[in-house]
Amino acid sequence: MESWPAAVERLTRELGRLPGVGRRSAVRLTHHLLRCPAEDALALAEALATARDEVRPCGRCGNYAESELCPLCQDAKRDQGLVCIVEKPSDIGAFEATGRFRGVYHVLGALLSPLDGIGPAEMGAERLRERLATGEVRELVLAVPASTEGEATSLYISRIAHGHSVHVTRLARGLPAGGGIEYSDALTVLQAFEGRIPA
Amino acid sequence: MESWPAAVERLTRELGRLPGVGRRSAVRLTHHLLRCPAEDALALAEALATARDEVRPCGRCGNYAESELCPLCQDAKRDQGLVCIVEKPSDIGAFEATGRFRGVYHVLGALLSPLDGIGPAEMGAERLRERLATGEVRELVLAVPASTEGEATSLYISRIAHGHSVHVTRLARGLPAGGGIEYSDALTVLQAFEGRIPA
Repeated sequence: MESWPAAVERLTRELGRLPGVGRRSAVRLTHHLLRCPAEDALALAEALATARDEVRPCGRCGNYAESELCPLCQDAKRDQGLVCIVEKPSDIGAFEATGRFRGVYHVLGALLSPLDGIGPAEMGAERLRERLATGEVRELVLAVPASTEGEATSLYISRIAHGHSVHVTRLARGLPAGGGIEYSDALTVLQAFEGRIPA
Repeated sequence: MESWPAAVERLTRELGRLPGVGRRSAVRLTHHLLRCPAEDALALAEALATARDEVRPCGRCGNYAESELCPLCQDAKRDQGLVCIVEKPSDIGAFEATGRFRGVYHVLGALLSPLDGIGPAEMGAERLRERLATGEVRELVLAVPASTEGEATSLYISRIAHGHSVHVTRLARGLPAGGGIEYSDALTVLQAFEGRIPA
């Protein structure tokens, strides 16, 4: 015997499938969504349905787009020759938050991971090849995670870039902003040491 | 210039209005909802719209219901004479989780708080009066928070019950399960001491 009707349980179950939302949070969100003004709850439902309906990958970079190109690829003021390679569209937000990057992006969608069945095709390598073939790209900045998959991806992309006159760089490794040495893991300290520059 | 199209920003904004969901979590949830299978995302949108459409307050107790009565009030095996007074439907979950309460509930919807404009009418006092007038209720268990509003609510309900042959009780106060004395606040310890029983 359930305490609540089926529609309530169903909403709780669907909310509980979101990442980072456990059963307790799902109950709390359900309760909020049933108590808040109906238009607020329906606005969320509609925003979700609309986003799934209208958002598609940018034809050039793979970022979220509503038309053929995403807002960044449409922006004539961005440097189309400076391309930052990221794993997913949400990584773009972190770059844009710096307010200093004036290039554009290339969203892989996934990192190379043969054991998980993610090969060059799943990573959209062909799309990157086509982009490099236009000859417009001057520099590729590898901004992928410092993980095994990230390393494999970087290596693969460097090989693709070879043969085009493209400068390939990767993000610096070292201490994060505000990060103390005492609490940093050994690999971070090692990379910071190895990458030391004149003071 | 936004990094993402309007539909994406809108979904992030709506998700960010949920309790406990900040901007960062909203971005993460948006990203998940745009990457997961479309049917999963639409299932959530639909569950939300359906719940808002079909769920209404139980005509007897105020719990969530899809028909005139909620699942608990419809259950012939529950003791309709033992009524637990709670603030909101989600409180019912905590009681049902004990697996030992065989009575039914009365959901106030709000606690008495004149300064916030919540008087007896907003608290559904009339609905409780009607329920008591049927003569079916044998015991009212006050299960409201141990706060100022909770105390005011308890006092008010005790007065309503006066004149009906109803036994009014409230939940015990004391140490929570697993709660050490060292880390308990003074009021909890005082209430545990004052409520001490023979060992």
